[in-house]
Amino acid sequence: MPIYEAPTRDMQFLLHDVLKLQNYSNLPGFGEATPDVIDAFLEEAAKWHRDVLAPLNRTGDLEGCTRHEDGSVTTPTGFKEAYQQFCENGFKSIAMDPEYGGQGLPLTLAYAINEMTSAANQAFAMYPGLSAGAWHAIHQNASDEQKQKYLPPMTEGRWTGTMNLTEPQCGTDLGLIRTKAVPQGDGTYKISGQKIWISAGEHDMSENIIHLVLARIEGAPEGIKGISLFIVPKFMVGEDGSVGERNGVSCGGLEEKMGIHGNATCVMNYDEATGFLVGEEHKGMRAMFVMMNEARLGVGLQGLAAAEVAQQNAAMFARDRLQSRSVTGVKAPDKPADPIIVHPDVRRMLMDTRAFTEGARALTYWAALHEDMVHKAPDEADRQRSKDYMALLTPIIKAYQTHKGHQGANDALQVFGGSGYCEEWGMSQFVRDVRIAMIYEGTNGIQALDLVGRKLMAEGGRYWQTFFAEIDAWCEENKGVSDDLDAHIEKLLSAKGELVEATQWMGMNAMANFDNAGAASHDYLHLFGLVALGYMWAMMAKEAEAHKDEDDPFYANKLITARYFFERVLPETTAHLAKLKTGADTMMALPAEAF
Amino acid sequence: MPIYEAPTRDMQFLLHDVLKLQNYSNLPGFGEATPDVIDAFLEEAAKWHRDVLAPLNRTGDLEGCTRHEDGSVTTPTGFKEAYQQFCENGFKSIAMDPEYGGQGLPLTLAYAINEMTSAANQAFAMYPGLSAGAWHAIHQNASDEQKQKYLPPMTEGRWTGTMNLTEPQCGTDLGLIRTKAVPQGDGTYKISGQKIWISAGEHDMSENIIHLVLARIEGAPEGIKGISLFIVPKFMVGEDGSVGERNGVSCGGLEEKMGIHGNATCVMNYDEATGFLVGEEHKGMRAMFVMMNEARLGVGLQGLAAAEVAQQNAAMFARDRLQSRSVTGVKAPDKPADPIIVHPDVRRMLMDTRAFTEGARALTYWAALHEDMVHKAPDEADRQRSKDYMALLTPIIKAYQTHKGHQGANDALQVFGGSGYCEEWGMSQFVRDVRIAMIYEGTNGIQALDLVGRKLMAEGGRYWQTFFAEIDAWCEENKGVSDDLDAHIEKLLSAKGELVEATQWMGMNAMANFDNAGAASHDYLHLFGLVALGYMWAMMAKEAEAHKDEDDPFYANKLITARYFFERVLPETTAHLAKLKTGADTMMALPAEAF
Repeated sequence: MPIYEAPTRDMQFLLHDVLKLQNYSNLPGFGEATPDVIDAFLEEAAKWHRDVLAPLNRTGDLEGCTRHEDGSVTTPTGFKEAYQQFCENGFKSIAMDPEYGGQGLPLTLAYAINEMTSAANQAFAMYPGLSAGAWHAIHQNASDEQKQKYLPPMTEGRWTGTMNLTEPQCGTDLGLIRTKAVPQGDGTYKISGQKIWISAGEHDMSENIIHLVLARIEGAPEGIKGISLFIVPKFMVGEDGSVGERNGVSCGGLEEKMGIHGNATCVMNYDEATGFLVGEEHKGMRAMFVMMNEARLGVGLQGLAAAEVAQQNAAMFARDRLQSRSVTGVKAPDKPADPIIVHPDVRRMLMDTRAFTEGARALTYWAALHEDMVHKAPDEADRQRSKDYMALLTPIIKAYQTHKGHQGANDALQVFGGSGYCEEWGMSQFVRDVRIAMIYEGTNGIQALDLVGRKLMAEGGRYWQTFFAEIDAWCEENKGVSDDLDAHIEKLLSAKGELVEATQWMGMNAMANFDNAGAASHDYLHLFGLVALGYMWAMMAKEAEAHKDEDDPFYANKLITARYFFERVLPETTAHLAKLKTGADTMMALPAEAF
Repeated sequence: MPIYEAPTRDMQFLLHDVLKLQNYSNLPGFGEATPDVIDAFLEEAAKWHRDVLAPLNRTGDLEGCTRHEDGSVTTPTGFKEAYQQFCENGFKSIAMDPEYGGQGLPLTLAYAINEMTSAANQAFAMYPGLSAGAWHAIHQNASDEQKQKYLPPMTEGRWTGTMNLTEPQCGTDLGLIRTKAVPQGDGTYKISGQKIWISAGEHDMSENIIHLVLARIEGAPEGIKGISLFIVPKFMVGEDGSVGERNGVSCGGLEEKMGIHGNATCVMNYDEATGFLVGEEHKGMRAMFVMMNEARLGVGLQGLAAAEVAQQNAAMFARDRLQSRSVTGVKAPDKPADPIIVHPDVRRMLMDTRAFTEGARALTYWAALHEDMVHKAPDEADRQRSKDYMALLTPIIKAYQTHKGHQGANDALQVFGGSGYCEEWGMSQFVRDVRIAMIYEGTNGIQALDLVGRKLMAEGGRYWQTFFAEIDAWCEENKGVSDDLDAHIEKLLSAKGELVEATQWMGMNAMANFDNAGAASHDYLHLFGLVALGYMWAMMAKEAEAHKDEDDPFYANKLITARYFFERVLPETTAHLAKLKTGADTMMALPAEAF
């Protein structure tokens, strides 16, 4: 049975030493999040995730969800009780608005807890995860009355939420949505159509399910400019908030998936269900994008979480499994062979994943702090800068981290050799579960296109210019601190130079042939991801150096992993630059029928 | 339901135009393999694999194998009948020695057919695959009497074979084997112990199963120098070849695996089973390595086969699925959206995989031809050169091709978006099935260590020196043929220059610290794999250019893919070189308990 021990020490290092949350006590909710409070929260959460949630992960994989003839869905044994504890422990409402019952603490802290939930049990994490997305979409787009009605029970966890976008004929291209909404004259609509791949669409954990549904009002314009957003509750809600009669929405089937079996992935049938418009008519896409952008950060977090838990188990296995002798001489003379962690190629896989998870954790929490700033910073310029960064980094965090997270889980499986391929060891599940993260909330290809097609060009390039300038300023400011840090800074600036070159190439070539942007997008995103992680590693190395004389070996280990990142991971930038500069011509040359 | 259409046109191009099998008609069996015979064979095999074997692939995944209380194992519906047809069609015995009933045709042709079998149904392919391995081990190591007894029914397919190496405490490190062999004084031995992960260890397809078992004769030296190889038939075989009483070997259980569910992966219990020594006492490892080396080429073939079939389905999906418009303008104005194959990032995944599969196919068949030469070339120098190449390239083909094949299957899944994650589309199975290929027959890490630890140093570096010299000579000879080919040659020589630099680095640094070799091994192997594929692509481009004025668009398409390989794939060499030159120090620096 795989284990999961939340990396609380690393989380503390990031929240206290690197991001220095204590310096933001002027922001609402940050004053309450003192280091002591944060540490206590992390500790309690780590214990619960280790002892309660992680052991249910394999149960979820083996049992999956069951749909009954009446369309009701049962989640795997233990999920319902765990969800109740999850809500009672306050893990659901950490950063939610106190006006609706939330704790109002920093999102940055919420992300740390989310990482634990996702690592311990990705399929489970999606139930509260989707709810949080729906919560935010309502919070930011719905009327006061709607917010008063739906948010408090969702904050509490008594009700959950979903996102209903995909239909059989449209996933990426939501302009093709056919689900229709017919106005009833009383302000409500009748919603009819079929949605697929609806995570947590039906289950037994909550008293009500609040579906957020994209649909087209009769007579609306074609394409995405005719899409509106609706609240469609599973059970109608009375004026007093009481749960009433069943609405015309039901689960028509569950998907058989490669992984996340514990999550109910539903076909949802809407048959003249009563829906309530959220925001303005035909402006549904914008509202949904708010929700989706935050969800994308959460998916990026899943990539890192899967790699973290897989790597923990791989490291444990590598310390225990005895096989062959070290090529530099016997290391465990009292044993029939050395533990495989003495073999460099096993180390390579563990170190690659470690350099990724620790860097990605820093980047994700850094982004979460900017998300906090977007909502809470008193200064407009700060809010704008954080907004720019969120816009720029979200596709990178989503795509780069799920790609590398999947790779990390795969490497961890590889460390187990043949045992990794046998289901009982649990490594296969980590790989299968996290595979979806490269697809949902916009495939990684769509993220790359969002980055090069929208984010780079927005505001005349302001987003990336600001980010690059921040890296330059940081490097300038920290030159001369130590030889080691100088060496890291030199490598970071060199990689950033390649990213600048790539950005210029995009500017010059994308306009001449738009396909050049698409053809370059994957490599550009990965190049950007590497530079962003490099920036995080430089910041972490600086803080670790400042503490390195302390007794805690954490800091010395952090410095080793930093060096590994700069030596062994960052050089990948060069290949990405070379590839992307070849443009689209050859890539697009084959006739479609030749494939 | 996924489809599979064998790439016969590409196979013909390789066998006729690139490898020019017709020029080897002086070798035994090659004279019979005229282009007409080869084409007819390919065509018939393609039809059978498409119509009969491929449709059973998903059946195998869903049903898996069943072990009954008496230890017998039933394979999935249709497997037994398909196996019988497979043997009757002569697919099993293509390259086997005519002295024992084989057809004696080139191994190169057998590899093409093996590719089809593996692509159509990897789990099925392992039954004849393991048999062929056992066949070769007996053919090369056993006594005449043993060969006469066991080989003819194995050639026919009435009997199958297995390889029994792994035990719970040892996979890679076979020196730890505990299964014991007690001499009975009559030339036979009693074999007792437990073997795990035995593919095709028990099943219902054949009348008898000939297990090849590594065991330690009582009193033998410790470690791998005390390991002997035994034949342990499931049913004892009479002097007249008749199948007699049951031997003391049985299947104790089946593994629950990530994939290849249709293959029976058995725990095999040996309880004083009668065994017959193959070759000399304590020399079992050498005999087993012969078998394993050939099996490793077969595993490398699985990597390419999985990527091929997955990519075929992805291409079909990409031509059909309508989603969004091309950024360079509407391509299918009569449809609600363009087929996704118009989007560059979808192309990127298809082209990456195509550049890999076509290059890997060339490399595998090229190696197979050298395997033919090892056995059949009249000139000792030719045989030795081919032997050198086989030794050098086998670990590269096994590890590079399974790594990239898994990646190709994953990319194909990604092209399907959410459908790729749903089991009904079959893409998940391709990814899950081929994942084992990175592990079995020696993990990819072991292949890399074999390359840098044994193959590079053997005979004073003769293997790689010969191979590098061949590339240089080919490039020299083909300079000036065309501007395009010159550009390819320039890129190939530049990549080869990096490989030479890496090889020199290994020479200088591996002796100082053996861990440097292990730390560099993965990147060195991939760098070598890229150069080897580059050589293949250069040869293919030359032949395609010679035909490019012909009506067949095959050649023009081949030239596009060649250009893609040199522009978009080969630049990865630089990152591998940069990484491997950083050595082992940082990789090995963390204390084991810090992970």
